[in-house]
Amino acid sequence: MSNPLFEKHRATLDRALAAIADRGYWTPYPESASPKVYGEGAAESGKAAFEALLGKPFPITLPGAVGTVGGERSPYGVELGVTYPKVDLDKLFAGIAHAQGHWRAAGPEAWVGVCIEALERINKASFEIANAVMHTTGQAFMMAFQAGGPHAQDRGLEAVTYAWDQMRRVPAKSLWEKPQGKGDPLRMEKRFRVVPRGIGLVIGCCTFPTWNGYPGLFASLATGNAVIVKPHPAAILPLAITVRIVREVLAEAGFDPNVVTLVAHAAGDDVAQKLALRPEVRIIDFTGSTANGNWLEEHARQAQVYTEKAGVNQVIVDSTPDLAGLARNLAFSLSLYTGQMCTAPQNIYVPRGGIDTPEGHKSFDDVANAIADGVRKLLGDPARAVEVLGAVQNRGVLDRLDQARGLGPILLDTQAVPHPAFPDANVRTPLIVKLDARDGDKYLSEWFGPIAFLIATDSTDQSLSIARDAVKRHGALTLALYSKDPKVVDHAIEVAEDAGVALSINLTSGVFVNQSAAFSDFHGTGANPAANAALTDAAFVANRFRVVQHRMHV
Amino acid sequence: MSNPLFEKHRATLDRALAAIADRGYWTPYPESASPKVYGEGAAESGKAAFEALLGKPFPITLPGAVGTVGGERSPYGVELGVTYPKVDLDKLFAGIAHAQGHWRAAGPEAWVGVCIEALERINKASFEIANAVMHTTGQAFMMAFQAGGPHAQDRGLEAVTYAWDQMRRVPAKSLWEKPQGKGDPLRMEKRFRVVPRGIGLVIGCCTFPTWNGYPGLFASLATGNAVIVKPHPAAILPLAITVRIVREVLAEAGFDPNVVTLVAHAAGDDVAQKLALRPEVRIIDFTGSTANGNWLEEHARQAQVYTEKAGVNQVIVDSTPDLAGLARNLAFSLSLYTGQMCTAPQNIYVPRGGIDTPEGHKSFDDVANAIADGVRKLLGDPARAVEVLGAVQNRGVLDRLDQARGLGPILLDTQAVPHPAFPDANVRTPLIVKLDARDGDKYLSEWFGPIAFLIATDSTDQSLSIARDAVKRHGALTLALYSKDPKVVDHAIEVAEDAGVALSINLTSGVFVNQSAAFSDFHGTGANPAANAALTDAAFVANRFRVVQHRMHV
Repeated sequence: MSNPLFEKHRATLDRALAAIADRGYWTPYPESASPKVYGEGAAESGKAAFEALLGKPFPITLPGAVGTVGGERSPYGVELGVTYPKVDLDKLFAGIAHAQGHWRAAGPEAWVGVCIEALERINKASFEIANAVMHTTGQAFMMAFQAGGPHAQDRGLEAVTYAWDQMRRVPAKSLWEKPQGKGDPLRMEKRFRVVPRGIGLVIGCCTFPTWNGYPGLFASLATGNAVIVKPHPAAILPLAITVRIVREVLAEAGFDPNVVTLVAHAAGDDVAQKLALRPEVRIIDFTGSTANGNWLEEHARQAQVYTEKAGVNQVIVDSTPDLAGLARNLAFSLSLYTGQMCTAPQNIYVPRGGIDTPEGHKSFDDVANAIADGVRKLLGDPARAVEVLGAVQNRGVLDRLDQARGLGPILLDTQAVPHPAFPDANVRTPLIVKLDARDGDKYLSEWFGPIAFLIATDSTDQSLSIARDAVKRHGALTLALYSKDPKVVDHAIEVAEDAGVALSINLTSGVFVNQSAAFSDFHGTGANPAANAALTDAAFVANRFRVVQHRMHV
Repeated sequence: MSNPLFEKHRATLDRALAAIADRGYWTPYPESASPKVYGEGAAESGKAAFEALLGKPFPITLPGAVGTVGGERSPYGVELGVTYPKVDLDKLFAGIAHAQGHWRAAGPEAWVGVCIEALERINKASFEIANAVMHTTGQAFMMAFQAGGPHAQDRGLEAVTYAWDQMRRVPAKSLWEKPQGKGDPLRMEKRFRVVPRGIGLVIGCCTFPTWNGYPGLFASLATGNAVIVKPHPAAILPLAITVRIVREVLAEAGFDPNVVTLVAHAAGDDVAQKLALRPEVRIIDFTGSTANGNWLEEHARQAQVYTEKAGVNQVIVDSTPDLAGLARNLAFSLSLYTGQMCTAPQNIYVPRGGIDTPEGHKSFDDVANAIADGVRKLLGDPARAVEVLGAVQNRGVLDRLDQARGLGPILLDTQAVPHPAFPDANVRTPLIVKLDARDGDKYLSEWFGPIAFLIATDSTDQSLSIARDAVKRHGALTLALYSKDPKVVDHAIEVAEDAGVALSINLTSGVFVNQSAAFSDFHGTGANPAANAALTDAAFVANRFRVVQHRMHV
C-alpha cells in the first residue's frame, strides 16, 4: 500500500530525478513574486502573516518548554519582539525519542512524501518567509523572497531527491539462490530495511537561514531521521516558520510532530555545543564560521558532520572581450546583499602590466577604475542601491570594513546609503582596496562582507598559482576567470579541478559568480577547506541512513 | 573515445550493476577450485608460483626502497622467508605524487576498466594467492582459496560496481537554459568532472587480508585515487601479490605503476600511524582492533576513515523445529577457521528453563549438550577437522583460550588436533563455557578466537534485551535467531533493525551465520560500533570522489 503523500508528489519527484541526472535548468518553485504566479493578494497576506507574528510568542508547542528566548533584531530597524520556547534538552530529547519510532518505521515513501508536501506548503508561505528572512538577515525583499523562498525550497527538494535516488536502490527483498552442483540450490529470502541514523541537527546561519538550512533538514528528514533545527540566534524566525509548517504536515500525516523540533537559544550560550555532543545526535549540518565548523568536526565524533565554513573567493582577470561587461558583472557580485554571501568574490587578481581588451591594452589602473566605476554606476541611485545591497546583518561586518580600510590604498571607499523606507537600516556600499600579490597576509583570509581586494600580480600564471594555493589552504566556494585565451582557460580549469573549486568563466551578462542554481550547480565541492560536502550530491545523503538486513531459508 | 579495458569488461560491469540492484546470488569468479573450472594444472602451477616466492625478496620495485623487511611466519610451520622493500615514506609519497596526475586525469572509465582487468588477473592467480593466504592466516586451503580468492574478488568487484554506479550519475556536461520572460534565455554550458580525493590507504588485517582489503583498495582506485596498501606485518604476501598484479595492469595500460604501492613494515613500529597522518592520505580503510580503529577515527582527521573493528556476535535460541540441524549449523560456525572470523558467533543465549522442539521440551543442558555434541561430531576425525579449523593465526588466540577457560564451567574444552600434513601447526577446537545472563562483565567483550559462551537467560525476551544492548554498546557483525514463533521472529527483526545488525533466522542447513556473500549480503551495517561502514553500499563509495564543475555562457 503506497503512501498517499508519496503518490501525490510522485510526478514532482520523477521530474526532480530527471533534473539531478541532467543538471540542466529546472525548478518546481517559481522565483517570480508576481501575483500572476503566486496569486492575487499573496504578497499582502504573506506580509500580514509575518506581521501577525511580531511582538508575540511564536506559535509552537515543544516538549520541555521552560520560559522563552528571543531577541532577534531587524537590520532594517523594525521591532520584531518574537519569542520562542526555551527548551530543557533532556525533556526535548525524551519527546523526540517518543516521536521517532513511528516515523522510523514508516519507511522511505512516507518520509519522502511528507518532505515534498512540506516543501509545497513552505512554497505557499514564501511571502511570509521572505519577510522573515528580510528582517533577520538584512536581505532586500526580492532577494529574501527568491533566495530565502523558492531557491531554498529548490535546494530542499534537491536533497530529498538525492535521498530518494539512493534509498530506492536498496531492494526491499531479494531471493538468493546458490547452485549446489546436482543438489537443490541453497535458497534464502533476504529483506533489506533502510533505517535512519537517529537525530539530525541543523545549525543555521544568520545570512541564509533557509537556503543553507533546508538541504540538511530535508536530507535528514527524508532518510527517516528526526531533526532538531537550531537557528542562529539572530535569524530564528525563518526557520521557526519552516519548522511550524513541517510539524503541521507531520501531524496531518499521523506522525508525532516532535519528529521535527526547534531549539531557539540566546547568543553566546552553549546550547549549540550541548546539542552537538548529545549521543542521540548522529548527523550535524552546519553553516557558519571556520572556528565553529572545525570545533564540530573535532568534537562531535558521534555524528556525521557536514560543514560549510569560510573561504577566500577569487577572480582572475587575464583578458576580456568585454571590459564593460566584466565591470558590470563584478560590480553586481560585489554589491549583492552587501557582499554578505559565502560565494561573493573577495580577491581580484589583475596583472600589474594590464590586460588586453578589444579597445586595446588596459593598464592595471584602467581595469581597477572600470570595476570601481561599475560599482558606482550600479549603486548611483539610492532607491535602487538599497534593493541590491540590502542591509548590514551585524556589527562585525562594519568592524571589518573599518579594519580593511587600513590595509592599503583605497580604490573605492564604502559609503552609507540612506534607505528610503527604513531610516535605521545600515546600508553600505562595497570597499575595494588595492593590494599587491606579496600582501598575502592581508588577503589570504576571509573578510566577510562588502570587502574586495584588487591585487596586482606579475602575470596570470602568478594569479593562478596564488589562487590554487589559496583554495587548497584556505578554501573557497567560487573561482572566476576572465580570459580570451583558450590556453589560460584550460589552465584555470586544471587549477580549479586540482584545488577542488567551482569555476565560472567569462561572466559578463546576467549570471553572477555568487549565484548557485539548485538542480544544476553544485554548491561547494567538499574538496577544499571551505566545505566538507556539496549541495547536493550522493555523498551528502548516502550516509544519513543505513541498511539492515535479515535472511532466512525459503 | 572509450577506454579499451572499460569496453572489454563492460558486460561484466553491466551484470554486476544488475546484481547490486537485485542483491540475489551472482558471482563472476567461481568458488570451485576444480580443474574443470580453473583449468588442468592451475592448482599445481599456482602452488609452484607461491613456492617460487619463498626465501627471496618479493619482486616489486618501489620508490624510496631502503633495505628490506619481512618476518611472516606460516601458522602451518612452513618456512616463508619472503622479504619486501622497506620504503622511505617521503620518497614513496614523491613517487606517488609523480604517478597521480595521469591517473587522476584518465577519468572513471579508465579507472574502472583497470580495476576489473586487475580483478580478472587476480582471479587467475587465485591458487597462488590461496597458498599465500593459507600460510599467513592459517586458513585451511579450501577456505583460503574461496574466501581469499573468488569471494574476495567478488567484494572487490562489488566495490568497483558501486563506485561506477555513483560516478555514472554525474553528467559530464549539461546545458542550463533559464527562461527570461520574453527575452532570450540565459544559457550556460556546465561541465562536471569527477575528481579523486587524493591517496587511499588500506590497512590490512592478519586473518582476511584480501577479503577485507579488496573493498577499500578497489573502491578508492575505481574513484581515481592512488592507493597505498599497508598489510598487517603477519600477512603481507597475499596483498603483495595483489599489488604486483594491479601494478602490472596499470603499467600495461600506460600508467605509472606507483598509482598502487605496498608498504610492508615490521610489527610494533609506527609506520601505520605515520602513514595515516600524512596530509596526502585522504581515505583510510581499516580492518582490525577496536583500539587501532578508534585511534584512526580520532587522529586521522584529514581523511575519510572506514573502519571494521571488533564486536560481540550473538545467537538467540528460543525454540527450533530442528535441534540437530541447529547444533550442526552452530558447531560449524564455531569451528570454521577456529572461530577467527569477525562474523563468528560468541554468545549463545538459551532460556534457563529450556526450549521447545519437535522432540518435546529440552532443558538448557539438553541444548548445551546438543551443541557440544555437534562440535564433537564435526571435528571427530582429525583429518577432516583440520580442513574445517585451519590453524591458529597468533599467540593471542591461545592466550585468550587459556584465560576464557577460567570464566565458568566448561561445557566443551578446547583440544589440540594434530595436523597430518603440518606437524608444527597449532590446531585447536572450540571452547564453550557456560555462563549466566548476569555475567555480562565476562561475555560483553570480544573474545576473538574459538571461544563461545552458552548463556542462561530468564527468557527469550531477556536474551533479546541483552543482545540489543550489546550491539548498541559493543557492536556486532552478526546476530542469529532460532525460533518457531513468528512473534519472536518479528521481535528479533525489530531488535536487529533498532540496534543495526544483520540477522540470520533459523539457519539449520548449508548457510552459516558467519558467511556473507558479496553482491547479496551487506557485511557490517555501519550502524553499530563494530563498523562505521558496510561492504558494500553507496555510502562506502560516494565520498571517495568529489565533483568539480566549470561553467560558461554559450
